[in-house]
Amino acid sequence: MKISELSRTTGVPVASIKYFRREGLLPAGRATAATLAEYGDEHVQRLRLIKALTTLGGLSIAATREVLTAVDRADSADGTLKAISYALPVPVAQAPAVDEDEEARAGAAAAADVAGLVAAMDWRIPATSPHVRGLTTALRELRRLDADYRPERLVAYAELARSIARLDLERAAAFEDAPSLAEQAVVVLALSGPMLELLRRLAQEDLVRRRTTFEDSEDVGADAPA
Amino acid sequence: MKISELSRTTGVPVASIKYFRREGLLPAGRATAATLAEYGDEHVQRLRLIKALTTLGGLSIAATREVLTAVDRADSADGTLKAISYALPVPVAQAPAVDEDEEARAGAAAAADVAGLVAAMDWRIPATSPHVRGLTTALRELRRLDADYRPERLVAYAELARSIARLDLERAAAFEDAPSLAEQAVVVLALSGPMLELLRRLAQEDLVRRRTTFEDSEDVGADAPA
Repeated sequence: MKISELSRTTGVPVASIKYFRREGLLPAGRATAATLAEYGDEHVQRLRLIKALTTLGGLSIAATREVLTAVDRADSADGTLKAISYALPVPVAQAPAVDEDEEARAGAAAAADVAGLVAAMDWRIPATSPHVRGLTTALRELRRLDADYRPERLVAYAELARSIARLDLERAAAFEDAPSLAEQAVVVLALSGPMLELLRRLAQEDLVRRRTTFEDSEDVGADAPA
Repeated sequence: MKISELSRTTGVPVASIKYFRREGLLPAGRATAATLAEYGDEHVQRLRLIKALTTLGGLSIAATREVLTAVDRADSADGTLKAISYALPVPVAQAPAVDEDEEARAGAAAAADVAGLVAAMDWRIPATSPHVRGLTTALRELRRLDADYRPERLVAYAELARSIARLDLERAAAFEDAPSLAEQAVVVLALSGPMLELLRRLAQEDLVRRRTTFEDSEDVGADAPA
């Protein structure tokens, strides 16, 4: 198909397709003339993935390039999972340091919490994992707010996170031999985050409403208010 | 304290403090002269919260203002939780429509999935909840990628999300009567998301590494590779 049809099929404007080409996110089409190229299903699939990463995943162009490079290089299902996982941006921003000494203490305390958690969970993860660094940053920021995430609380969350990860890998396993493994791995690893966050908020909302209903009103068992 | 000391204590530059004042995020200090104001602990606390929301939470100034307004207006613990929860931005971007008809079909299918899930979980949540709308958008985007999140799979995730929400509310309950309830609620609802996402990635990484170790190498039981 021509670039105009590729644009219609995927809903990605021609200018964006050219931009993704220049940025190296999308492979070249098959040249059919000096200024014409023919695109195929692999381009449609890749464009859908780029769109999903940049919109649903909220990834920058640079982060998208890293994930796609990992997808293209991986040579096994597990390799794909790990490569994509490591290429994902860490979802936590770091506030500027207030006081160097306090900063160092908070950082050391957070690092100790993470090390304790990894040991308690018997997780076989090297300290160089970007997720270890990310969690350390997140816990340090939470400590600054006096948030009570002591190791024993963290373990309770981590146990549930492990159950979720098992579901994730079951999903990925179903695509073990499919050419779409990389795409599905991206979906599982990068794009299901917002879904989980929304499920958690829905569950929180239900628990709060249920408690309020039980305590404050008589319509126990009634449907949710409109 | 003077604005310069407020800046030193919180690590927020004076120019940013003035900006937050102008944007209505931070209340005025007590005027002590025509051009001088005195700031107190409540300003320190509020500035820490603003910094946490904009850095760790990644919220925009507009979203931060909505959350803070909700915090200030809420008159009960549950009211605070719900107000903050509703003020949080929905963590999912919507890709531009490709085809209006296909869009409408995918949207209707996603809405049906969400309604089925809410019924299956016996969640008492009105269809007007921003989290219902957010989850519908997320599922529609996942459907576009042919991701297999059928209702029965969603229920498994939702059950785990409910367990996490119970932990969240236990944490919030510990602060029921504290003046810091609002701050802690923000931490639980808005800022623990990145922590959970990192725990999930760590658990995924462990499961993949463990599988690979068992299958491919002889050092079963050894520590994680450096």
